[in-house]
Amino acid sequence: MPTSVPTRILVAPSGFKESLSPEGVCQAVAAGVRRLLPGAVVVELPLVDGGEGSAATMARATGGDLITTRVTGPVGEPVDSYLARLGGSAQGTWLVEMAAAAGLRLVPAGMRDPGATTTIGVGELISVALDGGARRIIIGCGDSGTCDGGAGALVALGARLLDAGGHEVDPIGSNLARVQRIETSGMDPRLRDVEVLVAGNMHNLLTGERGVSRVFGPQKGASPEQVEALEAGLVHWAELLAEAFPAQAAHRDLLTGPGTGASGGLGAGLAAGLGARLCSRFDVLMDADLCGVDLDAQIARADLVITAEGAVDFQTPRGKIPAEVGRRAKVAGKPVIALAGSIGRGSEAVHAVGIDAVMGIIPVPMDLPEAVSRADELVTDATERALRLILLGAAIAA
Amino acid sequence: MPTSVPTRILVAPSGFKESLSPEGVCQAVAAGVRRLLPGAVVVELPLVDGGEGSAATMARATGGDLITTRVTGPVGEPVDSYLARLGGSAQGTWLVEMAAAAGLRLVPAGMRDPGATTTIGVGELISVALDGGARRIIIGCGDSGTCDGGAGALVALGARLLDAGGHEVDPIGSNLARVQRIETSGMDPRLRDVEVLVAGNMHNLLTGERGVSRVFGPQKGASPEQVEALEAGLVHWAELLAEAFPAQAAHRDLLTGPGTGASGGLGAGLAAGLGARLCSRFDVLMDADLCGVDLDAQIARADLVITAEGAVDFQTPRGKIPAEVGRRAKVAGKPVIALAGSIGRGSEAVHAVGIDAVMGIIPVPMDLPEAVSRADELVTDATERALRLILLGAAIAA
Repeated sequence: MPTSVPTRILVAPSGFKESLSPEGVCQAVAAGVRRLLPGAVVVELPLVDGGEGSAATMARATGGDLITTRVTGPVGEPVDSYLARLGGSAQGTWLVEMAAAAGLRLVPAGMRDPGATTTIGVGELISVALDGGARRIIIGCGDSGTCDGGAGALVALGARLLDAGGHEVDPIGSNLARVQRIETSGMDPRLRDVEVLVAGNMHNLLTGERGVSRVFGPQKGASPEQVEALEAGLVHWAELLAEAFPAQAAHRDLLTGPGTGASGGLGAGLAAGLGARLCSRFDVLMDADLCGVDLDAQIARADLVITAEGAVDFQTPRGKIPAEVGRRAKVAGKPVIALAGSIGRGSEAVHAVGIDAVMGIIPVPMDLPEAVSRADELVTDATERALRLILLGAAIAA
Repeated sequence: MPTSVPTRILVAPSGFKESLSPEGVCQAVAAGVRRLLPGAVVVELPLVDGGEGSAATMARATGGDLITTRVTGPVGEPVDSYLARLGGSAQGTWLVEMAAAAGLRLVPAGMRDPGATTTIGVGELISVALDGGARRIIIGCGDSGTCDGGAGALVALGARLLDAGGHEVDPIGSNLARVQRIETSGMDPRLRDVEVLVAGNMHNLLTGERGVSRVFGPQKGASPEQVEALEAGLVHWAELLAEAFPAQAAHRDLLTGPGTGASGGLGAGLAAGLGARLCSRFDVLMDADLCGVDLDAQIARADLVITAEGAVDFQTPRGKIPAEVGRRAKVAGKPVIALAGSIGRGSEAVHAVGIDAVMGIIPVPMDLPEAVSRADELVTDATERALRLILLGAAIAA
């Protein structure tokens, strides 16, 4: 064994969808490291992107609580939901995972019409955070099943959507075009004293060629005609928001500003209606001051970083967690490897974003269900194999 | 990139059964090396163990010829066969791959009775080598479908097996017990002037608890009763060999001497009948003086050795090519990695025989037929991935 082996290893993975939580991946990697390097310090830092599972992971990671509650689901039926009251240095901050109340997974397969779904439940979760005394609320975006511009969330918080006849309309995407006015007098006054951050993808815009209805509408189940109707509705909705919330909407481009399209336009709705800051999700979710996860500080202290994702492929550099880890580690000059449940087409692009090497976890021909069910042991074994190659390289250079 | 990267890489793999030849693996690995280290010297040294495919690989590797011919197959039907006339520094040496004339693959599935098969074709291949002017003949063992103690080969070369009534009996395993005498006067006189080496597994013994009929009989299709009958026949056969070839058999333990059981007792038959030397297969097939493949010299010049096998598992340390490469490299103090078509149970045992690290080739969940059909590209990609991890380790240590 060479003298120059990694002695402090940062394990900073994503979860493996429908298989392992980020914490589960951390534990599996750490077990592999300890097999080969029992003396190494292993720091486990499970990472989330705001989408499904983010609240549970962040609650555990910060020593906070996951609060369960029942809210209105995306198709109007009640659903069991939850939100995170963060702990530790992030006390006072609550994380609302929008997918927990309005995720695509909560939309029954036969009802995949983004014009018919609502973010009412997201507003209800925000109310729970307000009831709990939240000083800061982070809205984690991702995996949404809605396209209502955040109308539902605003209604849940006291706004009323009125048509030409002064009648209330339901806050769903296909109704936005019929709304004539947003009545804001009934909105929860506690919203004035809370900081709201939307942790989303800044590439998601409310309208236009790169707008949410055109980019995401089809995958949420919209036909081409519905896509154009949703688009027109959102353009109209942005005008209504600017009229109803002139102070918050001032100096903002609600139509095509960065992040306005997060989660089917929830970004625009919360920016205008709640004065929320639209932020790049990783700038929020990997920031110690905001939510207790200080990725950069941990990278700076590590001499090897191990990240991971269920699938490493051409999409990884486009805003996935391993790419963010790679980018930050490259800034710090630290080596990074990515473990991959599967290594797909275009995976070589990850080297350009700072990931030095990729290790697959599949040891033998097997089908996906087997790989998913055995992911824990496969990750541990693959970690050991990757480290053996790294140690061999270190021995050659020593 | 660190300064201490491997600059001379020895690629010394086995083939992947029913997928890639050893040369094919070499080329796929070399392609992966060149992607990442275009300036490295890559030495391709395809390795064989004497079993199926050995003759073709050795003919190509030495610049010799593969001679095709028609011989008597293991169940008596003619089969298309071949043997290798080695070239280069191994000129004058011929390699007979016993499986090319009497392999298990040549025994139809419905006729898997090791008592009924013969090595006549092996003797016929030896005749072809003699016709070609061979000065040395290497008999590659492995993948055999016979248990005739080499009786068939001796008959093909002029011996006669006589029963109590003086009648000739067919040279098959179940007949050995009936033979009363081996008549040797008609044997090919050219055999006196040729050196014969049996390249086998020295752990294979002719008789006893670790004898070929008990160890290999069942997998060649024998029932428990047949196994015991074959065992008794082989004990008797060893006595007959000692009587018929007293000079060659002197000082040899034909019953339980190392390698006597190679290829269903072919080792014992050729040791007695032809004065063949029974050798550990790798001592012959990796020896420059004997067949032009100088593994040790190439290991000595390399700063990284890459070996490979279709399956790396608990069996690998038990006499498989990667284990032999690892053992020799460890003696030379050189780092070795093994690429694996699949990484099976017990693979961790390979580290004890000198293999520093194992890299699997399967990138995503897939079935065996897909892995087999894509082995070429998968090996190239896996080579690149392994090298990236090695270079990362070198960078940490640099």
